[in-house]
Amino acid sequence: MAPRPKIEICLSPALLHLFDTKDKNVVIIDIFRATSTIVTALANGAKSVIPVAKIDECIRISQSIENTVSAGERDGQIAPGLQYGNSPLSYPPEFISGKTLVLTTTNGTKLLHMVEEYHSILIGAFVNLEAVVQHLKNSRKDIILGCAAWKDRVNLEDTLFAGAVAYHLQDHFDIFCDSTIAASNLYQMAKDDLLLFLKNSNHYRRLSGFGLMDDLKYCTTLNLHPIVPVFKKGALVVN
Amino acid sequence: MAPRPKIEICLSPALLHLFDTKDKNVVIIDIFRATSTIVTALANGAKSVIPVAKIDECIRISQSIENTVSAGERDGQIAPGLQYGNSPLSYPPEFISGKTLVLTTTNGTKLLHMVEEYHSILIGAFVNLEAVVQHLKNSRKDIILGCAAWKDRVNLEDTLFAGAVAYHLQDHFDIFCDSTIAASNLYQMAKDDLLLFLKNSNHYRRLSGFGLMDDLKYCTTLNLHPIVPVFKKGALVVN
Repeated sequence: MAPRPKIEICLSPALLHLFDTKDKNVVIIDIFRATSTIVTALANGAKSVIPVAKIDECIRISQSIENTVSAGERDGQIAPGLQYGNSPLSYPPEFISGKTLVLTTTNGTKLLHMVEEYHSILIGAFVNLEAVVQHLKNSRKDIILGCAAWKDRVNLEDTLFAGAVAYHLQDHFDIFCDSTIAASNLYQMAKDDLLLFLKNSNHYRRLSGFGLMDDLKYCTTLNLHPIVPVFKKGALVVN
Repeated sequence: MAPRPKIEICLSPALLHLFDTKDKNVVIIDIFRATSTIVTALANGAKSVIPVAKIDECIRISQSIENTVSAGERDGQIAPGLQYGNSPLSYPPEFISGKTLVLTTTNGTKLLHMVEEYHSILIGAFVNLEAVVQHLKNSRKDIILGCAAWKDRVNLEDTLFAGAVAYHLQDHFDIFCDSTIAASNLYQMAKDDLLLFLKNSNHYRRLSGFGLMDDLKYCTTLNLHPIVPVFKKGALVVN
């Protein structure tokens, strides 16, 4: 019998150098809210999402392409010079369909640009969990689940999503990675009420402090969108 | 009411730069097996334990002090030039009492030397869990629980011990750190049979592969030694 492919979880971009990411499926995870928003915009008909690191780059790129929306927040507010924020609820089909979303986020974008050169990159969030799991299962390659974290500090919601993927794939993949065992067990504990489990977490407190309970609820809802965004030539598109 | 002190967990030395460790109680954790062995040797009467990074330094220091034992392993074998290995079971009172143990380990020693200059440093292991918890509770200072990990990769046993400390202190300290929420929940899940919970972990497989089941059992036994080792002038001594 051929050896089974492996699952590993990288809990923070500051640990990424410890992983051999070559020729693996790398899943970028930034639950609150970058990857939830990317999945939603593409599922609702956005042509593509262009992730950029900085606000001025976001403005420049959105002005150089037709039919774009520039978006991004800093400290919970729409960043000066941009049109929209990071909430997935801001991108319903009637607004985003056919448009290109140029999105600047801090943590998710950073991780994406750290791996962009040499990988098969997918975007994962609870809203497309099942689609990501099926894609990874069919592709039969080693997997790195990369958590965007918060300024390199490990966060609970990204860890839980990575654990959810591992939990659903454990019968088909080998798990020799302690972070994966930990995250998968945490997901098992949390899965009946993700939001309750997250209620003391940093991001929950931060976003609920901004009055964003609807975003928190939406981003922890499973399987709203049966699509898998992939990174191709600098943009995220539906696979 | 005065604000309660905080608990944070640093899951890997590669994340230590994200923490403000100044004026805090820093607990060094390397369950398999450095900190378990340090606690055991001191509880069994060792005068002090001198932790060193390299084998040649270990030999040099042990030759320059009277009544020493040099110890350390590389790849599961006693390192060439040293007298004993890393097993806590090698240091019963009749052997180690009154002696100075000069110990070289890779992960635990590295973390210790990263923080040695400016902290109150304690040594924690399951074998002295209750004593560490009481010490931290009485001291009422912010706490950083520092996991030695494995070549910077997060490991399950150090995470579980950090979680155990947080679990027992949660009513007296504030927990605003996602790693602490995660680890504390994992400990709650694992506490009825720590070894069973660890059976697929990297270190369990590695050490059981070396035939060291007795070490694994010993290092996951709670509260054998009611002492707290602290770091003073380059050596670990009973507080």
